[in-house]
Amino acid sequence: MTRTIVASARKEIVIGFDQPFCVIGERINPTGRKKLAAEMVEGNFETVKKDALEQVAAGATMLDVNAGVTAVDPNATEPALLVQTLEIVQDLVNVPLSIDSSVTAAIEAALKVAKGRPLVNSVTGEEEKLEAILPLIKKYDVPVVAISNDETGISMDPDVRFAVAKKIVERAADHGIPAHDIVVDPLVMPIGALGDAGRQVFALLRRLREELKVNTTCGLSNISFGLPHRHGINAAFIPMVIGAGMTSAIMNPCRPQEMEAVRGANVLAGTDKDCATWIRTYKDYKPVEGGHAAPAPAAANSSGESGGGRRRGGREARMSARG
Amino acid sequence: MTRTIVASARKEIVIGFDQPFCVIGERINPTGRKKLAAEMVEGNFETVKKDALEQVAAGATMLDVNAGVTAVDPNATEPALLVQTLEIVQDLVNVPLSIDSSVTAAIEAALKVAKGRPLVNSVTGEEEKLEAILPLIKKYDVPVVAISNDETGISMDPDVRFAVAKKIVERAADHGIPAHDIVVDPLVMPIGALGDAGRQVFALLRRLREELKVNTTCGLSNISFGLPHRHGINAAFIPMVIGAGMTSAIMNPCRPQEMEAVRGANVLAGTDKDCATWIRTYKDYKPVEGGHAAPAPAAANSSGESGGGRRRGGREARMSARG
Repeated sequence: MTRTIVASARKEIVIGFDQPFCVIGERINPTGRKKLAAEMVEGNFETVKKDALEQVAAGATMLDVNAGVTAVDPNATEPALLVQTLEIVQDLVNVPLSIDSSVTAAIEAALKVAKGRPLVNSVTGEEEKLEAILPLIKKYDVPVVAISNDETGISMDPDVRFAVAKKIVERAADHGIPAHDIVVDPLVMPIGALGDAGRQVFALLRRLREELKVNTTCGLSNISFGLPHRHGINAAFIPMVIGAGMTSAIMNPCRPQEMEAVRGANVLAGTDKDCATWIRTYKDYKPVEGGHAAPAPAAANSSGESGGGRRRGGREARMSARG
Repeated sequence: MTRTIVASARKEIVIGFDQPFCVIGERINPTGRKKLAAEMVEGNFETVKKDALEQVAAGATMLDVNAGVTAVDPNATEPALLVQTLEIVQDLVNVPLSIDSSVTAAIEAALKVAKGRPLVNSVTGEEEKLEAILPLIKKYDVPVVAISNDETGISMDPDVRFAVAKKIVERAADHGIPAHDIVVDPLVMPIGALGDAGRQVFALLRRLREELKVNTTCGLSNISFGLPHRHGINAAFIPMVIGAGMTSAIMNPCRPQEMEAVRGANVLAGTDKDCATWIRTYKDYKPVEGGHAAPAPAAANSSGESGGGRRRGGREARMSARG
């Protein structure tokens, strides 16, 4: 059974086919968030801290940490900023982290200070990337997200994307890195632009699981780009990818509809033992008249989701976590 | 490609792997609805009519019609009552109907008056049932729901349920009935009682599709029996069964969360061409702050769902449909 171990200083999480879906909180990322980028450049990490606490309270299994503020020379500035951000986050929350950067020096700097066993996000099938990142993965003995594109870009042909993933797994093996430390991102296209995007991903996920026996992840909300009511599409996509074998996703855990879909799919996939998390989270839930979906209730926090005691959730938990 | 054709006097629907999920409205059924049963016995069909119009307005593809009011002698009373109910419903709405009875004489009486090509619900693997129902299916050239239990009851072993389904398909073939006119119900157990219920169904659906090449259905809400916030479990289950190959379900279309899951899964399975139904239904949808799921908006009615013009939906449509 494929098991990818990630850990913080105090908490270990297993990503695997028989495990609850691993929700990797995506919020700590200045890409497309100008205000956050400006704050981070100024050394103001209040939003980072708030995003960290809120995501954990909402049920994130782990948190992605990205400090790509698109400076003129990211190679010069990003390593220090990523280290600073990572240290703040790992001192604040218990969950494992994902070190997210396109700058190799930033990844290595962060690996030097990271506690536990972080996930590295990411390597691709590009030769330069493979040769830069895989030695670090081996040296620090950590798992890595493998994005299935290469020098030629992102292929629209899912067979080519599978072949790129296979190449990365094989190249990693050459470096002494086992397949269970590769978490493949098969790349999710917007369904509004490519009507076949869903079926492509479902087929790829099955092959990745059955043939390469790897864990998988994706940037989940890509699927709904450009469509109205994106949460509804995301919330239908989550059970479908879980059913097809996906074991984690980089997503926004502060969206109750999406997290409800994760918890429901965990019940149905048999990874929420005795439906314990579902019952704890929704036992006092009252749908509004007529079966309309009501605002989601108290979210169990991450410790709660993985079997800890019952916590106050939702707004109340987030407010108190903040204070 | 497996295609099951159902039709009313004026409307034909295809159930198939490449078609939008077929939502069979379950509301016209006095089982467990004492008030409705009493009304029907008294010859009062106001609730039946209201349920018919509301389900179509909410997006039902077809409607199940059951008149099992559990009289002392259903063989004597149910045929006339089912005929009366069916005629009222088929005069009121355009969608194809499903004739739902455990009384063979009632099924035959209804088949005699039904317009178009109704679905018969159901036959089982019991010898007596097979020999009673299959000749009617052949005689009236209609499709039938095949429930995968037999004289020994419902097996907890999914391989046995598959074998029962296979036996029904083979027996139907002996009567000259093609596999595409058999819609197999693999039987859904409550996940709260049987933690493996989801995985069992997903595996069965794949086998039914790949090995028997049949369309499939189920009583959808069984899955969430006994759990809190059943709509949330149902709404996660729908995309998972659609992903696993299920092509229809007997369910309550008046539940917006479930119908949103159906529409989302249709987009992702590639059966909502150009996302047209999704965009029409949700283009003015505004989630409440923080990504909470808001009450679902206007539901396209059944004609709208299958490509007709845009209709007013939701409460407004139901009210005007009633008047």
